[in-house]
Amino acid sequence: MSRCRPDRDPSVVPTETPERPPLTRQRSVVIVNTGHGKGKSTAAFGTVMRGVARGWRVAVLQFVKSGRWKVGEEEIATRLGVDWAKTGDGFTWLTDDLERSRALAGAAWEQAQVTIAAGEHKLVVLDELTYPVNWGWIDAGEVAQVLRSRPEEVNVVVTGRDAPEAIVEVADTVTEMRKVKHAYDRGVRAKRGLDF
Amino acid sequence: MSRCRPDRDPSVVPTETPERPPLTRQRSVVIVNTGHGKGKSTAAFGTVMRGVARGWRVAVLQFVKSGRWKVGEEEIATRLGVDWAKTGDGFTWLTDDLERSRALAGAAWEQAQVTIAAGEHKLVVLDELTYPVNWGWIDAGEVAQVLRSRPEEVNVVVTGRDAPEAIVEVADTVTEMRKVKHAYDRGVRAKRGLDF
Repeated sequence: MSRCRPDRDPSVVPTETPERPPLTRQRSVVIVNTGHGKGKSTAAFGTVMRGVARGWRVAVLQFVKSGRWKVGEEEIATRLGVDWAKTGDGFTWLTDDLERSRALAGAAWEQAQVTIAAGEHKLVVLDELTYPVNWGWIDAGEVAQVLRSRPEEVNVVVTGRDAPEAIVEVADTVTEMRKVKHAYDRGVRAKRGLDF
Repeated sequence: MSRCRPDRDPSVVPTETPERPPLTRQRSVVIVNTGHGKGKSTAAFGTVMRGVARGWRVAVLQFVKSGRWKVGEEEIATRLGVDWAKTGDGFTWLTDDLERSRALAGAAWEQAQVTIAAGEHKLVVLDELTYPVNWGWIDAGEVAQVLRSRPEEVNVVVTGRDAPEAIVEVADTVTEMRKVKHAYDRGVRAKRGLDF
């Protein structure tokens, strides 16, 4: 099975400190979790909990999913003081009014801009933002501009498939979650507690 | 920048329910987060929190990292009732006694086997297990056998680079976290609250 080529032989126990580039100071970063595999939102959620553990104020804005999805995350995050906003109206194929979906996505983006600019949260997660951007509902260049001009202590995580180039460019760290295999393809149901 | 080829045109708003394979029941799954990008352990941690939100008993066994790494996760997870075991003795290049590291990894694997077989945790995370397996300290075939014969309600998440084929084979869902770019390569320090 083809996976990432290792940088080094994985069977050799590393005994020397890896080489590092000279370190610089940067107050915050933009992280993008993209790709068609699992783990984009799940890793963002892990980052949220890490921020919470550090005493950060954290905001999560959901751009697409709503309803029963992410209820577990939302429940535990809000219990721990995370500001959690469900702004999308769910999967587009379940809605009968695309104009309403589009308006909601626009409103969510307004809310995201205000939240980032306010600088009160050290971490802002824009969950599933890439979808309305790819649908042409939110302008990728405008998102990049908002990320670039954010307050210097605000970290941002963006998730979703097919991250637009303009957003990848402004990001510090971009990971593609690539599906090697997925239980769902064999017909295994999404599992409460694992998938939502 | 080359990322995953989209299955469909990402600019088209999906208006039809996606096709699904016939669904089957399966009591638990094995998930592998591998690849050289960020998010392997972070996504596992997100899954831990999701399980906690559902009221599951959850166990995390760390095979390699210890010390200041993951202190944030550990702190918040244990606060929420997760059983968290640090079993590795840290990065191999910081240890002066590889035989001790090897013995610790073996003991960690013993503990993992007991934890899985006991069936008391609905989720068991074997964090960074792939490293001691790839170093030949733990047998990949034995790991696969333990996963295959686990109690039917025990879900297992394995993380680490270069997941061995035998473990990929027994897994239901495998995601490769592929690095598209990483702040660290530009010399940006690992950030407290984001990276640990």
